[in-house]
Amino acid sequence: MKEKDEFDLVSTENLTIIPWLILKAEATVQTFDKRNKVVELSALRPSVSSGGPRWYSVVVVKSFKELDKRKKELKGKLVVYNQPWINYTQSNEYVKHGASRAAKYEAAAVLIRSPTPFSIYSVHSGQMVYNSSVPKIPAACITVEDAEYFQRIFDRKLTLNITLSIETLTNKENKTSSNIIAEMKGTERPDEYVIVGGHTDSWNNDGALDDGAGFMIAWEALRVLKELDLRPKRTVRLVLWTAEESGSLGSDDYFERHHDISDKLSMILESDQGVFNPRGLRFTGCSLAKDILQEILRVHLTDLNMTEITPGGESSGTKRWIEEKDVPGLELLSDNDKYYYFHHSKGDSVSVLNADEMDRAVILWTTVIQIVANFDSLLPRQSAATFNHVALNVLMAYAMSVLFLMSHMSYLPVCCVDDAMQNEEKLLKNCEEVRK
Amino acid sequence: MKEKDEFDLVSTENLTIIPWLILKAEATVQTFDKRNKVVELSALRPSVSSGGPRWYSVVVVKSFKELDKRKKELKGKLVVYNQPWINYTQSNEYVKHGASRAAKYEAAAVLIRSPTPFSIYSVHSGQMVYNSSVPKIPAACITVEDAEYFQRIFDRKLTLNITLSIETLTNKENKTSSNIIAEMKGTERPDEYVIVGGHTDSWNNDGALDDGAGFMIAWEALRVLKELDLRPKRTVRLVLWTAEESGSLGSDDYFERHHDISDKLSMILESDQGVFNPRGLRFTGCSLAKDILQEILRVHLTDLNMTEITPGGESSGTKRWIEEKDVPGLELLSDNDKYYYFHHSKGDSVSVLNADEMDRAVILWTTVIQIVANFDSLLPRQSAATFNHVALNVLMAYAMSVLFLMSHMSYLPVCCVDDAMQNEEKLLKNCEEVRK
Repeated sequence: MKEKDEFDLVSTENLTIIPWLILKAEATVQTFDKRNKVVELSALRPSVSSGGPRWYSVVVVKSFKELDKRKKELKGKLVVYNQPWINYTQSNEYVKHGASRAAKYEAAAVLIRSPTPFSIYSVHSGQMVYNSSVPKIPAACITVEDAEYFQRIFDRKLTLNITLSIETLTNKENKTSSNIIAEMKGTERPDEYVIVGGHTDSWNNDGALDDGAGFMIAWEALRVLKELDLRPKRTVRLVLWTAEESGSLGSDDYFERHHDISDKLSMILESDQGVFNPRGLRFTGCSLAKDILQEILRVHLTDLNMTEITPGGESSGTKRWIEEKDVPGLELLSDNDKYYYFHHSKGDSVSVLNADEMDRAVILWTTVIQIVANFDSLLPRQSAATFNHVALNVLMAYAMSVLFLMSHMSYLPVCCVDDAMQNEEKLLKNCEEVRK
Repeated sequence: MKEKDEFDLVSTENLTIIPWLILKAEATVQTFDKRNKVVELSALRPSVSSGGPRWYSVVVVKSFKELDKRKKELKGKLVVYNQPWINYTQSNEYVKHGASRAAKYEAAAVLIRSPTPFSIYSVHSGQMVYNSSVPKIPAACITVEDAEYFQRIFDRKLTLNITLSIETLTNKENKTSSNIIAEMKGTERPDEYVIVGGHTDSWNNDGALDDGAGFMIAWEALRVLKELDLRPKRTVRLVLWTAEESGSLGSDDYFERHHDISDKLSMILESDQGVFNPRGLRFTGCSLAKDILQEILRVHLTDLNMTEITPGGESSGTKRWIEEKDVPGLELLSDNDKYYYFHHSKGDSVSVLNADEMDRAVILWTTVIQIVANFDSLLPRQSAATFNHVALNVLMAYAMSVLFLMSHMSYLPVCCVDDAMQNEEKLLKNCEEVRK
């Protein structure tokens, strides 16, 4: 990264992670049709093992409410959660808490319908939380198709048994992983910052959407600023967090180490909801800051149709800065209605990415970062009463627009497509290193 | 079927099939990223075995043209076909002929990109054809994602090796399978027919779209005619073909046995392209017959938005009757633009079906079958010069419409949803029996 991109600083910060591995996750269902159908599944982190193949009688429920109602039927049973898709947050509650909620009623294992609005027999994985007051039982996600199949059999009161074999390994020796940090030093206020992040760990396959594309556009933004020689007054810092999927360990570690800079942090950006056709920004902050960002988008990005601002600027990597330190936070707003089709599944591959959409996301990130990092003042905050330089800065933004647009329009589309593809090899190697 | 539905005749006709089984189909890729990534695949029928795990160097091509161009590079190699999705017929050519085309240049094995316009790391299977003039080499389908991944690696001239292990079994002892036939005898012309079909075999999972839904709406049509006591003048015959996926063996056998009735067959229907929101009919036949069908749809099904007629009435089960015997042929026209998302993959499950759409397809099938089977004459054919009773029959169709619509509108939606679900158990059992 340092050699090729010639950033001013490239470093890593180590933290301890607890490796957890799936050695085996297999199931078959025994029912009226005698197909002994194989049930594809993915153990949830950090599921315990089943202790060899175990045979369970099955109870299917659609909700925690139904689970509570059936509490007397659950002893020694395998509970299948066939919760409907509502949205990720609500449907994923069953992934997170399904095991312990069922264990409270002495259930022996749980299989949870993958939280997705669309499935081609797709298994989606995730992180769960064991409640320490009840026994830990094995937990895995299954497909929407199988959850619905089990529901139909169960509703008709037909025999329904599942043989489940989950073998996982929590490594006793903790390992070291690293956040990766790179910087372009500011010309006038090098001790003030804009931070742009992303996370390098992933669940399945390439992790291209979650969060390969997100950390790529962050990296590219810094590289493009360097390439176009658009060094702003403030320092732009790229932070690639590790171990997001196991509970935001990397970004938590980073926050703990560096939160003392929050008063000098103008804004923090992370794209972690996929990079599709970009439309603008998700933003959390005060209305004055929003107006400034709106003006930047209007002036510079109208031609590229990237002018929309909606709420929701938090991501797992930036959340604590925004909520605890009142730092203005930005997420990418893109047409990500299919994001959960692929999320945490083997479908999260480079094939989902579109080079032109990636380019436009880089243009958006680069534009906003460069202009905000170049203001005379920090972006205003919820708690700030006034902001003195807004009018001046917006005028400056206007002045810059012609020059900036001229340069990036001709340059970016070519360099980014090519680089994104060329960088894949290096990226995967880097990720591999980091994950070790 | 006979006991519960009280059809006039329920019988089976046996035929010999050659069982072919996949015992193992595994692959891993060795390349720069050292992930030793597992490559999901499905062996194509009737692929030969690889003879244990074999290690191959890989050549990736996008077309047969590129294959021909690279013919000197292929000896002993594994060829990956990364053909683009154009449509099923064109993209599936690589599934059908990819192995022998590569074997001609001494390639040792082939992996073929699944023919689908959309993928969530989905493997789609299929039937292939070995050319007897070249050696038989192992062949399997892989995901779009992996084919594109291999393409990117190959284009960058990086190391790309695949370890492939395919073990298949062609049973030396042929087995007996059966077509299932049921009838409602005609009141006035019992030796004249309308045939409505579907096939009972499938590739993966439930085979709900291909062709569970198709044979269900055929079966339901007959059952509803019985239930509503709408017995037409001609005999309505339901034929559920076996072994369609291995080369239309069931429907070929049926045609060979019964083609002498073709002069007395008014029309033949099969839905084998999925049952989604029904819009009308695909039809192959003369324009006079099309006009009659158009009038039936207009009069009876305008309120349900099922009035469209497009070309393409052939299906694998009905093709020979239509092409060799000039019998008018009907396929269901439904919003099946997502059909190939699921086709021959594990995503072809009951979850894809929608009870209301199934109901409306049954209404469409039942309406058209009842009215055509009740005409005084057979539907006109391409070769027929005149058709005497058209005007009269269309008038009759008008007269029937009020009565028919009144009865089926109130009755069908309830009975079909319920029955489709209740029948699943029985259906799966039947299919299981038939497949044995």
